[in-house]
Amino acid sequence: MIKVIFFDLDDTLADTSRLAEMARRNAIENMIRHGMPVDFDTAYKELLELIKEYGSNFPHHFDYLLRRLDLPYNPKWVAAGVIAYHNTKFAYLREVPGVKRTLIKLRELGYRLGIITDGNPIKQWEKILRLEIDDFFEHVIISDFEGVKKPHPKIFRKALKAFNIRADEALMVGDRLYSDIYGAKQVGMKTVWFRYGKRAEAELEYKEYADYTIDKFPDLLEVLKSENGSDKEVHAR
Amino acid sequence: MIKVIFFDLDDTLADTSRLAEMARRNAIENMIRHGMPVDFDTAYKELLELIKEYGSNFPHHFDYLLRRLDLPYNPKWVAAGVIAYHNTKFAYLREVPGVKRTLIKLRELGYRLGIITDGNPIKQWEKILRLEIDDFFEHVIISDFEGVKKPHPKIFRKALKAFNIRADEALMVGDRLYSDIYGAKQVGMKTVWFRYGKRAEAELEYKEYADYTIDKFPDLLEVLKSENGSDKEVHAR
Repeated sequence: MIKVIFFDLDDTLADTSRLAEMARRNAIENMIRHGMPVDFDTAYKELLELIKEYGSNFPHHFDYLLRRLDLPYNPKWVAAGVIAYHNTKFAYLREVPGVKRTLIKLRELGYRLGIITDGNPIKQWEKILRLEIDDFFEHVIISDFEGVKKPHPKIFRKALKAFNIRADEALMVGDRLYSDIYGAKQVGMKTVWFRYGKRAEAELEYKEYADYTIDKFPDLLEVLKSENGSDKEVHAR
Repeated sequence: MIKVIFFDLDDTLADTSRLAEMARRNAIENMIRHGMPVDFDTAYKELLELIKEYGSNFPHHFDYLLRRLDLPYNPKWVAAGVIAYHNTKFAYLREVPGVKRTLIKLRELGYRLGIITDGNPIKQWEKILRLEIDDFFEHVIISDFEGVKKPHPKIFRKALKAFNIRADEALMVGDRLYSDIYGAKQVGMKTVWFRYGKRAEAELEYKEYADYTIDKFPDLLEVLKSENGSDKEVHAR
C-alpha cells in the first residue's frame, strides 16, 4: 500500500521549461537593448549551446556568452542580462496546472509527501518557497546537498530512510524517464511518468519502467485510487 | 572651468543605506519565519558584524551567518534569506531625492557626466540600469573592473583620461570624505561633499579636502553657478 508520494520538482510541480525559455529570451533582448552588438537569433542560439555544454546552473552564462561571440567584456550588458533574467523568472514562476489542489487532496487522503530533485539547493528551495508549497512536504531531498544525483539509487534510498518506509510503500512521480522513473524503479518504488514539459519525451527507451503514465497532474488521484484499491483515506500516520 | 562632473553611486545617486538595512532586516525575518531557531536581534546583530568583517559584497553572508550562530546548514533558510533580501532590495531601490531632475538640468547646461564608484561591476550596473539613469553618463568607472579602488589616484586619472580632460576641468561629488573627496582632491579635481546617508560623517578628518558641502542633491546647481561664474551654458562639447 502506498503511504508516501515523492515528486520531482522541475516540470512536475514547478512549470520550469517555459520559465527558463522566457527568462533567457528576455535576457538576450535586454543585453541587445543596452548595446550588445549582435542580432537576437545569433545570441540566443549561442546561449542555448552554452547552457547545453556547461549546464543550467553554471554561474557565468552571460560572461561566457560574450567570450563565445568574440565581444569585449562589458559588465553593463551582463547586468542587463541578469536583471531581465531574474525579473522574467519571477514573473513566470508558476505551479504546473492543478498542483496545489491535488496536493491538498492527497494530504486530505492521508498521504505523506516528499520531493526528490536534482539541482542547486538554494535555487530549488527558492522555487518551492516562492510557490509557497513548502508546507505540503515533510522532506525535500536535493541532489547537490546530498552529494548524489538521480537516477543513482542512493538518493532514492535516502528519501525512503527519511520517511522510514519500505520501497513498496512509495510512489515516485516525475517527468523524466531516466532520472525519475528508471531511478525510482531501481530501488523498488512504484512509478508514475508525468508526460509534461519539453523534456518528457527525451528518454523513451526507459518507458518500460513506468507503472503508470499521466498527462495531467490531477490524474494522479486516479492512479492512487487504482493502486490502493479505493479512494478511502490512507491513515498512514 | 568645470566641464565634467563625476558622481559616486551609493548614497550619492542611489539611496543605498536604507535599501541595505531594510533588505537585511527582511532577510532575517524570513529566515526565522521558515524555521531558523534564533531571535531577530541576535541574528541581525550577527549579520551586521559578519558584513563588517567580510564586506558587503561577500557572496556567502547567509551561509556564514548559520555557522556563526552554531546552527546546522539548511538551504531552505538560506533561500528564504536570499529571496527576502532581493525582493526588498528591488522594492527600496530609489534615487536620492532630486537626482534625476538635477541630472537633466546639468545636461541641459552642457555638462558631461560620469560615475566613479567602488564595488562589483554587475551589482553597480544593476542599480544604474534599474534606476534608469544610464543614459545620463558618458563613462562609468567601477573599481572592481579597473582593478583599483577609491581613493587611489589611479582610478580618478582613468576617469579624466576617459573624458580626455584636465583635473581642473572636473568636479567630484560624493558622500564619503576619504574615498571620494580626499581621493579626487589628490589628483587636483574640485570636490563637493554631499552630506547624505549613514556614512557621510564617518571620516571628518578629511573634511578639509572638500571645496563645497551640500546637504541636498539639487544644491549642486548652486555650486556650479558659483564655480563657473554664472548659470550660462557650458558648451563643453
